[in-house]
Amino acid sequence: MHQNLTDIIGYCAAFLTTIAFAPQAYQSWKTRNLDGISLTMYSLFTVGVALWFFYGLLIESMPVILANAITLLLSTTIMYLKIKQVLKRKHISFTLK
Amino acid sequence: MHQNLTDIIGYCAAFLTTIAFAPQAYQSWKTRNLDGISLTMYSLFTVGVALWFFYGLLIESMPVILANAITLLLSTTIMYLKIKQVLKRKHISFTLK
Repeated sequence: MHQNLTDIIGYCAAFLTTIAFAPQAYQSWKTRNLDGISLTMYSLFTVGVALWFFYGLLIESMPVILANAITLLLSTTIMYLKIKQVLKRKHISFTLK
Repeated sequence: MHQNLTDIIGYCAAFLTTIAFAPQAYQSWKTRNLDGISLTMYSLFTVGVALWFFYGLLIESMPVILANAITLLLSTTIMYLKIKQVLKRKHISFTLK
């Protein structure tokens, strides 16, 4: 296939997998409904994205740096909201005892 | 930094962002609690990962193909469970009318 078309497919893929976390972060922020969201997922994912960002710096790749900076911000937001929910529930469960 | 170390960081990043979806898929499958999960996120993400997979085939990169095949399976599972939940609620809401 033509190299340009291959590149376009790669950029579309990168755009979609980066921007996908925006509606999740927005919904979680607005509704504060984090039920069903796995904290283990967002912990592993956030560390992974931070490593991608660091990897981008090392290989001096601006697309890798930029895409992962955005994803890092979004996934950290979701993880933060989930941790807040978990801590709140632990506090409630402790108070009820 | 040493090239080998840079590569190791890249592989760790790829491993974490791929495997991260496993605990989410497992939790969603086991509890069937999809509240708080954004369907928009998983729709955009699944299409994005499918494009990454296709991109991997085009550039003949086995790491890109393998990592995205796994993520595609996991994110499709989560999306499928979320769609089922949305359709079930629509049906309930329709029945109650």
